[in-house]
Amino acid sequence: MRLVRILHRGKAHYAEERADGFHLLSGDDLMSLVPTGEIPAQEEVRLLAPVMPSKVVAVGLNYRDHAMEMGEEIPKEPRIFLKPSTSVIGPGEAIVLPSMSRRVDYEAELAVVIGRAARHVRPEEASSYILGYTCLNDVTARDLQKKDVQWTRSKSFDTFCPLGPAIETELDPRDLAIVARVNGVVRQSSRTANLIFSVPELLSFISQVMTLLPGDVIATGTPPGVGPLSPGDRVEIEIEGIGTLANPVVG
Amino acid sequence: MRLVRILHRGKAHYAEERADGFHLLSGDDLMSLVPTGEIPAQEEVRLLAPVMPSKVVAVGLNYRDHAMEMGEEIPKEPRIFLKPSTSVIGPGEAIVLPSMSRRVDYEAELAVVIGRAARHVRPEEASSYILGYTCLNDVTARDLQKKDVQWTRSKSFDTFCPLGPAIETELDPRDLAIVARVNGVVRQSSRTANLIFSVPELLSFISQVMTLLPGDVIATGTPPGVGPLSPGDRVEIEIEGIGTLANPVVG
Repeated sequence: MRLVRILHRGKAHYAEERADGFHLLSGDDLMSLVPTGEIPAQEEVRLLAPVMPSKVVAVGLNYRDHAMEMGEEIPKEPRIFLKPSTSVIGPGEAIVLPSMSRRVDYEAELAVVIGRAARHVRPEEASSYILGYTCLNDVTARDLQKKDVQWTRSKSFDTFCPLGPAIETELDPRDLAIVARVNGVVRQSSRTANLIFSVPELLSFISQVMTLLPGDVIATGTPPGVGPLSPGDRVEIEIEGIGTLANPVVG
Repeated sequence: MRLVRILHRGKAHYAEERADGFHLLSGDDLMSLVPTGEIPAQEEVRLLAPVMPSKVVAVGLNYRDHAMEMGEEIPKEPRIFLKPSTSVIGPGEAIVLPSMSRRVDYEAELAVVIGRAARHVRPEEASSYILGYTCLNDVTARDLQKKDVQWTRSKSFDTFCPLGPAIETELDPRDLAIVARVNGVVRQSSRTANLIFSVPELLSFISQVMTLLPGDVIATGTPPGVGPLSPGDRVEIEIEGIGTLANPVVG
């Protein structure tokens, strides 16, 4: 199913996106939400980020060709960092360029959404902890990333983690086309088959370090072609089988 | 006041710690919790981490003498990193040494607890966003910190962020004694007057990058004397005016 989160009459709801509209869902367990029977009118609804993660665990340099583009060696273990929940925005919300940086880049990424608490999970069990997949833009202040020893500041600004539009729960993540476009021009184009560490390997590795909670997100790394954003731009991340995450950029 | 969080009959409550016991508090706003009138029996109560932050923003190398101990230059800007909420434990809970690491260190830190959402705050306004102060142990897998480019893995294991015992809301943080003891032996001993970046400077800097939410924690850095923990150890962080955070260590 295509799982979304929508704002309807001032309240956030999970919903299933179908041809005839958004079917509201309820429940405490992300893995077994149930329809309420309500389908609000399309014009009364706004799409939110499809989940509000307690944390986003991101992986650096996880496409062979991007590692080469950045002049880095292929890592032997996943290189992880965190993006805070306060950086998450939904489809259509503006990416705000901070005055601290002179160079802010898009990074198209396949995001894995966790469905149930995952700790010390083996790769072969990983799929049972996954709710589904969505698009993520790992927006990065490239100048600050190069200047700081740690990546945290450059990756953590408010609005630096667009997520969405929907979580596709039935998807094989192993060979999907992934594209970034700025103002309609393709800037990144690759396939998830080029990942150095696969989705099950990443989930297993991260869950050896920290418990992944329901709704948490793993950002699986970006392919070659990262580049700058300017005020007025419109950036789109499209992944085969999921759809397109589009966000305007403001100064 | 001394603000704590306690487990009572299976439920977490905020409470004020007084000589005659824990006075339960209620309310949605951390800055204006109100007494319910209940004082549960001491033996029915267990102390939890005094707050459950959405994120812990930590600062590296923020004591002049610790920067020198680590062979690093004095930073010109705060060097920030994140610890996930899943790393937080309360007083008395065990720090679990992960099998991935051969060397896990204690790091005594003064923790600032945020009381209301803070964004683009100027240093001179910082105090009005602060709920209070508590002790934090920034437990770090030192071998992984040196091996990884990013500090995230080494700082993010479950149980790597002991916090407590209480939030002291009336405290001047500018010159407090801070001590770490392992099995009763003093290993770190300094004063917060040695901070390179002060509490208001840190809050201001971080809030230029990301919104700090109520309950979020800033870990202000550790003084010299960091060293390893072994199974069976008991580690204590004591800060003048706050009290002692004690945790056992298990393999």
